[in-house]
Amino acid sequence: MSHHRTSRTDLSRYVAGMQKGSERYLARLITLVESESESVPGIMRLIFANLGRAVKIGITGPPGAGKSTVIERLTREARDRKRGVGIVCVDPTSPFTGGAILGDRIRMDRHYLDEGVYIRSMATRGRLGGIADATSSVSKLLDAFGKDLIFIETVGVGQTETDILSIADLTVVVLVPEAGDSVQAMKAGLLEIADIFVVNKADRPGADNLANELTAALHSREDKVGLDKPVLTVQAAHDVGMAELYEAIEKQVQSLRSSGIFKRRRVEQRRNEFIRIVETMVRSSLLSSVDEDAALRDFVGRVEQGIAEPYTAAGELLQNGSLIKALRGDG
Amino acid sequence: MSHHRTSRTDLSRYVAGMQKGSERYLARLITLVESESESVPGIMRLIFANLGRAVKIGITGPPGAGKSTVIERLTREARDRKRGVGIVCVDPTSPFTGGAILGDRIRMDRHYLDEGVYIRSMATRGRLGGIADATSSVSKLLDAFGKDLIFIETVGVGQTETDILSIADLTVVVLVPEAGDSVQAMKAGLLEIADIFVVNKADRPGADNLANELTAALHSREDKVGLDKPVLTVQAAHDVGMAELYEAIEKQVQSLRSSGIFKRRRVEQRRNEFIRIVETMVRSSLLSSVDEDAALRDFVGRVEQGIAEPYTAAGELLQNGSLIKALRGDG
Repeated sequence: MSHHRTSRTDLSRYVAGMQKGSERYLARLITLVESESESVPGIMRLIFANLGRAVKIGITGPPGAGKSTVIERLTREARDRKRGVGIVCVDPTSPFTGGAILGDRIRMDRHYLDEGVYIRSMATRGRLGGIADATSSVSKLLDAFGKDLIFIETVGVGQTETDILSIADLTVVVLVPEAGDSVQAMKAGLLEIADIFVVNKADRPGADNLANELTAALHSREDKVGLDKPVLTVQAAHDVGMAELYEAIEKQVQSLRSSGIFKRRRVEQRRNEFIRIVETMVRSSLLSSVDEDAALRDFVGRVEQGIAEPYTAAGELLQNGSLIKALRGDG
Repeated sequence: MSHHRTSRTDLSRYVAGMQKGSERYLARLITLVESESESVPGIMRLIFANLGRAVKIGITGPPGAGKSTVIERLTREARDRKRGVGIVCVDPTSPFTGGAILGDRIRMDRHYLDEGVYIRSMATRGRLGGIADATSSVSKLLDAFGKDLIFIETVGVGQTETDILSIADLTVVVLVPEAGDSVQAMKAGLLEIADIFVVNKADRPGADNLANELTAALHSREDKVGLDKPVLTVQAAHDVGMAELYEAIEKQVQSLRSSGIFKRRRVEQRRNEFIRIVETMVRSSLLSSVDEDAALRDFVGRVEQGIAEPYTAAGELLQNGSLIKALRGDG
């Protein structure tokens, strides 16, 4: 835990400032959420009443698929329709392979000039807590700030990325016509994750093939929810098909809402988030009680020394009074 | 949770078979650990008395650094010294970028013919629980099986990879002479993570430069623990410097042991693991109690509907009797 803890008064001041439209306070709150885990509950309590309006759109796909360009064009479509846009870029991959995203990101800079757009890259190192939790908190800040649409960009669909996508209301998977991409997509479980498929760089050979393969694969599956998942071919860099994509996203949001899936997803997201919060509180209660309670310290010490078997010990801890005392805060 | 749960009798039979030296039972237990989370506590209880002997060596670095070749050569050095070797390859990156590792892996196949070596690739999708937890459990199985050395191969040092390296007793970082690699290494916090640096493909230009830069960077830092971190140049593919690397690893293990760092790391690993186990138990108690307890279900339902603020609700849950009843198993 960090030793600095921003006071409750300061938090209230920052949130009030942000809600009056100050990007400076928004930026300060985002930095707090990324760097100072103790401030998160206080901030989230303060903005809770203003949450739920923004639609969160996950954009994922392999490196080089043109995700940033797609987001840039969609942002322009959204701005043409007077919608406020927030963009969160997450790069949970290794620093060795993270270069490509940074380059793409710079191309988005022109939007910095536009007051209706707020862009934030998530730092993945040196942060407390999980990147998925931080992305969720930053999205909430953008929601409370009054953005209508929030794009969340991630690379690929590894475990961390799937966690991040679980924050989104709708997920767009961007692919490019390259050998094996559709096979990879199926292996990666993208058919389940995607609500919309985009075949970008559609001027390249193989684009129609890829689109047809994806459509066929989607149709051959028993879709439990009966949601039609469109496959669109675009050329983001040449602005071909982007208005259609924007409209397909808006239409898909409507379908998700009217079918009840939109609400069901949010219920599930809130449940998962709640469980993570409870776990985190249990963890910190346990850690602080170990410092204060000699008997508990001895007990955990036996596990640390490899004397006590950890699963058996955890079961005992949950049955006996020590953890419960800790949870009640009277330890 | 999976609906199949392997019986306690079967688990005992598998563990007994594995401990008699059966690779078939070892493989079955690994599959269980990867696919059936409910079996993990039972298996870990059964093997607990046989844990702690194997030395776990993390091998990490960027794609293309030759990590698999390094492991292959180190394995041969270990086999020449009659040491049993286990290898766990983890690919936590996106399926889009995972191709390279698979190719490398195939080159290790010759070791399959050698009874002293057991190789396992970790599947990253469709598994229950975190990849770091699964890697830890598989390493424990290899330890209980009687392996002396366990190599854990991961790509890069993103968050998931750092979690995985936190399982290792010692970490080797493999780099190649390429522009910016040493800068990247520093940015990525590799100076802290690495116990040994390897500059592979040392016949390429820039190898000595990279080695010198790393050595200088290591020396310019106040090293709190006073551990000397060697930087070795090798050509794994041409078997140059590999016996020296193997001996440097053995020597570093000795230094870690005699300085007390080895033990301190394991204490910390056991503590972190214990906390994760407690968290997981709290999570499953909470989920099963929600099914059985109408009042608790209403309470969580208010969070799910977005009516109750989750941090406040989590605090209340820990203070009032519901979660405690659940933890005691009398709910």
